[in-house]
Amino acid sequence: MKLATLKDGSRDGQLAVVSRDLSTAHFATGMASTLQQVLDDWNFVSPQLEDLYATINGGKARHAFAFDPRQCMAPLPRAYQWADGSAYLNHVELVRKARGAQVPASFYQDPLMYQGGSDDFLGPCEDAHFASQDWGIDFEAELAVVTGDVPCGVSAAQALDAVRLLMLANDLSLRNLIPNELAKGFGFFQSKPATAFSPVAVTPDELGDAWQGGRVHLTLQSTWNGRKVGMCEAGPEMTFHFGQLIAHICKTRNVRAGSIVGSGTVSNKSVEVNGKPEWPKGYSCIAEKRAIETILDGKPSTEFMKFGDTIRIEMKGQNGESLFGAIEQEIVPLEG
Amino acid sequence: MKLATLKDGSRDGQLAVVSRDLSTAHFATGMASTLQQVLDDWNFVSPQLEDLYATINGGKARHAFAFDPRQCMAPLPRAYQWADGSAYLNHVELVRKARGAQVPASFYQDPLMYQGGSDDFLGPCEDAHFASQDWGIDFEAELAVVTGDVPCGVSAAQALDAVRLLMLANDLSLRNLIPNELAKGFGFFQSKPATAFSPVAVTPDELGDAWQGGRVHLTLQSTWNGRKVGMCEAGPEMTFHFGQLIAHICKTRNVRAGSIVGSGTVSNKSVEVNGKPEWPKGYSCIAEKRAIETILDGKPSTEFMKFGDTIRIEMKGQNGESLFGAIEQEIVPLEG
Repeated sequence: MKLATLKDGSRDGQLAVVSRDLSTAHFATGMASTLQQVLDDWNFVSPQLEDLYATINGGKARHAFAFDPRQCMAPLPRAYQWADGSAYLNHVELVRKARGAQVPASFYQDPLMYQGGSDDFLGPCEDAHFASQDWGIDFEAELAVVTGDVPCGVSAAQALDAVRLLMLANDLSLRNLIPNELAKGFGFFQSKPATAFSPVAVTPDELGDAWQGGRVHLTLQSTWNGRKVGMCEAGPEMTFHFGQLIAHICKTRNVRAGSIVGSGTVSNKSVEVNGKPEWPKGYSCIAEKRAIETILDGKPSTEFMKFGDTIRIEMKGQNGESLFGAIEQEIVPLEG
Repeated sequence: MKLATLKDGSRDGQLAVVSRDLSTAHFATGMASTLQQVLDDWNFVSPQLEDLYATINGGKARHAFAFDPRQCMAPLPRAYQWADGSAYLNHVELVRKARGAQVPASFYQDPLMYQGGSDDFLGPCEDAHFASQDWGIDFEAELAVVTGDVPCGVSAAQALDAVRLLMLANDLSLRNLIPNELAKGFGFFQSKPATAFSPVAVTPDELGDAWQGGRVHLTLQSTWNGRKVGMCEAGPEMTFHFGQLIAHICKTRNVRAGSIVGSGTVSNKSVEVNGKPEWPKGYSCIAEKRAIETILDGKPSTEFMKFGDTIRIEMKGQNGESLFGAIEQEIVPLEG
């Protein structure tokens, strides 16, 4: 099933079930008012929502209305955890190679993850406000899962069973703030502003065979200022699957229902054409494009996002229909 | 006023107002069922709770009951943000000096903070479970504030106005996991297990004159295995006050109601006795004691916590009464 959170003036919005084709929606009134409530009591509430989903898809829901992604908050407008991985090692390899650094061998066994802010997410069509366009504004197209409860110390396979929902994420990053911040040694803070999520969160069964071994075997599309810059394969090159990412967090603590775990920038290896590397699938963040330029030309030539720039992130299912709806954001100056 | 969250089998517990002397409590039924609800609607709900607080303190609340900290969850059993600072630069200086490193000049202008996990906090008297006692289990006695909504880009003074509540925290740390984790460059994850908080959260007026300029001018007591190891002054040596810490987070994003911001380990400078440094106020975490030993003797001699160890963290007000109640935890092996 597909779930969305619609704006109603409250902090957590109003939960709605959305038809598979994203054309219509129906409030989940009487079952749950927020998505967190569903996650808190998944086994009891989700079957009721599945019933409503079947009714909507059959065109028989009496109070269904047209679904408008612009009315969406993030599926979880705020969450108790946002833990983002860097699960596509190719991205790490490129960024490091561009600055002349090696990828430590341990990175292939031990996932790289950071704890992100989760108190204030952006809806899929909400502008991203920044005080300065000199901060190196970048999009990062990612997949993310929402978990149920996962106890401390579980295996990656057990952790995978706790995946309740999948979403797309735009993990906006301020690249020019990163070097100084990471040099301090405690990870990201100011360089990771509010993250945006797709209009709907979907249960894994919506992906059919494309959901395999904790990976999504589909193409993630990124369109920057109307130009398609990324058609990246999210499946085979994901070094760590979502179960491994969740298990990494669980090593020393419990992970509680409603935790969001991100894949990191989806990234594909180059192919060799006439003895030279090319990246025909493009990129899911500008930093990677700039790393490629640095490797090829000695310096980056693509600039980061400016005020007025737009980014669209979408993924289509095996039938060619949009799975999660699209993230469509504009970069705008912070007012006041 | 003083607020606690009592266990009732639910994820967020039941909100109670607690008398100033921590002897009696009263459920906030009809006003709010959880502390997050109060923070979401502070201006409307908190005056009602203040009225109940006055009634309890006057001994006139008809359904008051004996307050038992062992029945407490953390005041916010889960939160949308846990952002911890390292606001006592003396701690950073000692730890760095012990490993022969300098404190960069920028650290005195730019607060060091990390984003912590906030989906699963421990109550004040809940055991801390670990799979291994070889991880370098350490307590960290801290102060923490809970904020209201703070918009992106505010000044430190404006941010300070958003402090709603204060608590004590035990930011448990796994010291032996830290070096490898920080070497990866993305900050803490497995080295920061679930944090514990004091039985009650209190409004700043409860501290009287001791709440000055965003700092708490009182003594934080740490008692390890029944031995008082820390009597640290939390006020004058806090390099960055809470408004500065909140404003640091707000530089590139909003901070939403119910965010918890920690001070980091409370730490005091040495005094010179017969030409030698001494630390008569003790320490708020074992890592600092070990750093001092390394500076003085070339190597640490105090071991980290073992299974069966206990830690008690408390702060007394100007009248000598416990302000927040005590955090009292035992370190125990993870079962299963």
